[in-house]
Amino acid sequence: MPLSPYQQLEQEFRRLHAFRGAASILRWDAAVMMPRGSSELRGEQLAALETECHSLLTSPRVSRLLDRADANAQGLEHWQLANLREMRREREHAIATPRSLVSRLAKATARAEIKWIEARQKSDFALFAPHLEEVVNLLRDKARLLGKALDLAPYDALADEFSPGLRSAEIDAIFTTLGRRLPGLIHEVIELQAQKPPVEISGRFSVSKQRQLALDVMRTLGFPFDKGRLDESEHPFTGGVPGDMRITTRFNPADPLTGLMGILHESGHAMYDVGLPEAWRGQPVGRDRGMAMQESQSLLLEMLISRNRPFLRYLQPLLEKTFGVSGPEWEVENLYRLLIRVRRSLIRVDADEVTYPVHVMLRYELEKEILDGELKVMDLPEAWNSRIQDRLGVRPTNDAEGCLQDVHWAVGSFGYFPSYAIGAVIAGQLYEALRNDRPALDEEIAAGQFGGLFEWLRENVHSVGASLGMPELIQNATGRPLSAAAWLRYVEGKYLED
Amino acid sequence: MPLSPYQQLEQEFRRLHAFRGAASILRWDAAVMMPRGSSELRGEQLAALETECHSLLTSPRVSRLLDRADANAQGLEHWQLANLREMRREREHAIATPRSLVSRLAKATARAEIKWIEARQKSDFALFAPHLEEVVNLLRDKARLLGKALDLAPYDALADEFSPGLRSAEIDAIFTTLGRRLPGLIHEVIELQAQKPPVEISGRFSVSKQRQLALDVMRTLGFPFDKGRLDESEHPFTGGVPGDMRITTRFNPADPLTGLMGILHESGHAMYDVGLPEAWRGQPVGRDRGMAMQESQSLLLEMLISRNRPFLRYLQPLLEKTFGVSGPEWEVENLYRLLIRVRRSLIRVDADEVTYPVHVMLRYELEKEILDGELKVMDLPEAWNSRIQDRLGVRPTNDAEGCLQDVHWAVGSFGYFPSYAIGAVIAGQLYEALRNDRPALDEEIAAGQFGGLFEWLRENVHSVGASLGMPELIQNATGRPLSAAAWLRYVEGKYLED
Repeated sequence: MPLSPYQQLEQEFRRLHAFRGAASILRWDAAVMMPRGSSELRGEQLAALETECHSLLTSPRVSRLLDRADANAQGLEHWQLANLREMRREREHAIATPRSLVSRLAKATARAEIKWIEARQKSDFALFAPHLEEVVNLLRDKARLLGKALDLAPYDALADEFSPGLRSAEIDAIFTTLGRRLPGLIHEVIELQAQKPPVEISGRFSVSKQRQLALDVMRTLGFPFDKGRLDESEHPFTGGVPGDMRITTRFNPADPLTGLMGILHESGHAMYDVGLPEAWRGQPVGRDRGMAMQESQSLLLEMLISRNRPFLRYLQPLLEKTFGVSGPEWEVENLYRLLIRVRRSLIRVDADEVTYPVHVMLRYELEKEILDGELKVMDLPEAWNSRIQDRLGVRPTNDAEGCLQDVHWAVGSFGYFPSYAIGAVIAGQLYEALRNDRPALDEEIAAGQFGGLFEWLRENVHSVGASLGMPELIQNATGRPLSAAAWLRYVEGKYLED
Repeated sequence: MPLSPYQQLEQEFRRLHAFRGAASILRWDAAVMMPRGSSELRGEQLAALETECHSLLTSPRVSRLLDRADANAQGLEHWQLANLREMRREREHAIATPRSLVSRLAKATARAEIKWIEARQKSDFALFAPHLEEVVNLLRDKARLLGKALDLAPYDALADEFSPGLRSAEIDAIFTTLGRRLPGLIHEVIELQAQKPPVEISGRFSVSKQRQLALDVMRTLGFPFDKGRLDESEHPFTGGVPGDMRITTRFNPADPLTGLMGILHESGHAMYDVGLPEAWRGQPVGRDRGMAMQESQSLLLEMLISRNRPFLRYLQPLLEKTFGVSGPEWEVENLYRLLIRVRRSLIRVDADEVTYPVHVMLRYELEKEILDGELKVMDLPEAWNSRIQDRLGVRPTNDAEGCLQDVHWAVGSFGYFPSYAIGAVIAGQLYEALRNDRPALDEEIAAGQFGGLFEWLRENVHSVGASLGMPELIQNATGRPLSAAAWLRYVEGKYLED
């Protein structure tokens, strides 16, 4: 019997998935294993794979098959209909941007990234500005074309690539709530924490012992080491593909906690991917529901679960045993205070849970203004510096700790930043629902039992894949539409307790 | 100006090269880094890449471009004409086998390889026989189709995939010469070596020190660590792609020499790839000239250069320093005797330089007979055992040390084996020419100066790429057509000296 149009589409997308998985492993290799002199060659391999993916998605054959499958959809199951919808979504994104623009953007961002590295090293924005300008000009064209095709505002069209269904209207609503509450909250928390400063940890903590501890913790979480690895890289990330997860971290011999917290963050991403429905693997419907959902999973595990007392009750004896340490600085309460310190700081990736959204909201504002043309690229450093001072009360002394700190704009990822803060908000709302559903969660975590946590997440988040939009997923999992309320309750409860 | 047909072909083959390079890194990853449970997923990624390469090579577009480029060849340079010829060669190989047969062979060999592993573990040929039977039946079809397309005998058509231009007629001539001389020679050498047995090395040699020594030696050879790596894997191999070479070995803590000799072997392969002309990279003309030439480079470095006194004069102080050892067993003359011991043994990959061709010749005979149908798969164990006893005077006590020892037939690599012994013969002939051209070679090697060696190889072998056929390459490099004479002179001189 010949394959139906829908079945043929499944075949095509399985091929797409194989190419993307190959590319993902090659990117992991580039960050973790590859000799430095091989990057140009690797760039050619990745470009060939990406071009192939783009050709596949935009081929007339896929277009025809989609139309024929839509016209013969009556026999399809619910998840297959969702899969068709996601296939079409991917195709619409791919086809809206002409190949020449894709290629010009690829070249411009490759140049801009190299210049950004140099500019950041020298803290010299002027070096980077013309390249960012070029990227922005091309992105404006892309946003306009994509917006027209998807019937979205230009910025929303870009954001939709990272977090499908996330719109400025919802982002604005959430960020307005956060923006109203956070400045006062940050002030209160810092005052309060100043009254009970934690004892600092000092000493040397061998990387091999840190790695051993991390592997132990990951095993306890249920990370499947028969289908995944832990390695080290300059910037921690989660790579690979479900079925072959590769997470990385960076260990600091003077600090036994930061590398581990990085691993818990990345493990949150990895466990999401591991929990995606196996039966849908290789299909668009079997993917995660975008970067904001991804970030909700990493932040939930790192911030809400691990930087918390029950987890530290589980961790503390492991720390003592692994490093042969004891003393007041190693007590659970002290570790907790060390891990939830709130500070007015300049660097987003080092920021704590409470100030983090402020960093993100600044970038969101600025990138929208740049894209609209309201803010000129050359005026970015001053706008950045004055606004971060307004919001957080700290001012960069150079652009490396200001508008040159993140790679995102250089590589053209406009519309990505909101996912970080929206992810935190989602994590807060999931956490509240999870605690309601599992009253014994704290005791389980303290006993090193993570099965219940991941069972809940698998049932309510992971197993959904991309079969629902993000709003429905969150509504179903928590019984409410997404809002900042639960996260604010969580943060206030955690950081303003007596 | 629009691209000429030839230029468009270069683009297509650059894309092919990128896909193959990606696949090569993914295969390296599978052997060295990948978690065990991810092999099925990796199989899908590799299959998608291979299918893509096959589609590209067999596309009507490439066919049209080849015809148009041939018709407009007057403006092309010499290397471009060679490139066109190699493009056509690759296409003819790809198109001769219908896609359905390619796919059936891929599945049959995947199954057969798994069964081979099990059968070897249990030393039970009966488990493997029906799967080998299936592979052989499909290979017969392939050999017939390929032979018809290339105007070659079926076996030669298969061999041509591994070593372009290598034919049974030449193989037979060389193997007849070797077969006449080797039995007597082996007897004489073993008698002679028995008179001066070397002192055995004993002790433990830490893997990290062995690795350090190996890295030192590789650096001295000129291995480009900015574009390559050394790792460990179960079976040593050379992977990656020129510009990102990945070699592996396996260290034995009880034996400081075998891991290093493996690295020297693989470094011979890697230096060949490193020396291929950069200007032709990504094009068929820029590839190596097949497996026999590859093996000539690895054997030249391992057997003729490294298992020799000048190299050991360079290595000996490094061994003493690295492992903090001294004594009679570490003297150059003793190390030399340890490294050139000749033994009648059963396992090809552990065989010495002199008996090695006997193992290969046996496989060559058997695989031709199996392909012709002269020998039945079920009769293979007995044929193997009685013939290896005839030729070498040893008889396997089970099939794991007999006809189940190599993976080649399971994965369908009929026609591959001769390349190993022909590679040795080429190495012998190149070595003779090299020594004539560089009378100070021994002194250079003893001083740890490998520049002259690789300069000669680069000029005479590596830089040729695939611009010449193997016979012309050898004629140009050595002034003579390929024969076994030089290798026999070398072996007799080395192993029969007083």
